[in-house]
Amino acid sequence: MKLEPIGVIHSPYKNIEDAPRQGKTEDTSRIEIFETYKEGLKDVKAWKHLIILYWLGKAKRDTLLTLSPFDSKIHGVFAVRSPHRPNPIGLAVVDLIDIKDNILEVSGMDAVDGTEVIDIKPYYAKIDGR
Amino acid sequence: MKLEPIGVIHSPYKNIEDAPRQGKTEDTSRIEIFETYKEGLKDVKAWKHLIILYWLGKAKRDTLLTLSPFDSKIHGVFAVRSPHRPNPIGLAVVDLIDIKDNILEVSGMDAVDGTEVIDIKPYYAKIDGR
Repeated sequence: MKLEPIGVIHSPYKNIEDAPRQGKTEDTSRIEIFETYKEGLKDVKAWKHLIILYWLGKAKRDTLLTLSPFDSKIHGVFAVRSPHRPNPIGLAVVDLIDIKDNILEVSGMDAVDGTEVIDIKPYYAKIDGR
Repeated sequence: MKLEPIGVIHSPYKNIEDAPRQGKTEDTSRIEIFETYKEGLKDVKAWKHLIILYWLGKAKRDTLLTLSPFDSKIHGVFAVRSPHRPNPIGLAVVDLIDIKDNILEVSGMDAVDGTEVIDIKPYYAKIDGR
């Protein structure tokens, strides 16, 4: 199971300390999709919300228990959204503002500048919302 | 960017033709988490809804344009939820029914029997819902 980056995120957050809590931001980020994958963006513009999967390259992958910032207790990594997990894939639901050529302008992205993008999926409220 | 399976999905769908449209099911599936990763399940039981990431091992990864079953038109793969995409990661938001030891019983899962699991995340309506 090997992944290839399809693009890179340009965000206002230079370090992990600058990044907002997951999704809690109205800042805009730019998602640059590499030329090789650009054709896959056809009709993405029709969607208001997108699910972005990205690679948390600095994560510790051998962590199974972790402190949560919300209650200062130890939880299993699958019960929290910590970047430190066996397969460090980040997920953000973002609002699509615009697409120009191979650049998506979005809000609601919490990833640090330079984060590699793995996948983009349309968000369907009927199946993805609860 | 290499992934390791953390578990396997046991579902009623033996083949892709048997699987329901993404999330449109009330059938139950069982997600078995391997012993190595079991500790990461601590407190997952507190969540009603989970995001499951899984590996679509039979996908064609060189597809960038594809027919949608909804409108018979050609779309970019990032505008649809087709399994055929450069990084074939499936995503389902499921309802958690029960956890016993390393087995999660869930509904809303559309993956075929034997699908490998990559990650489990809690679903937060505030940041994941739109």
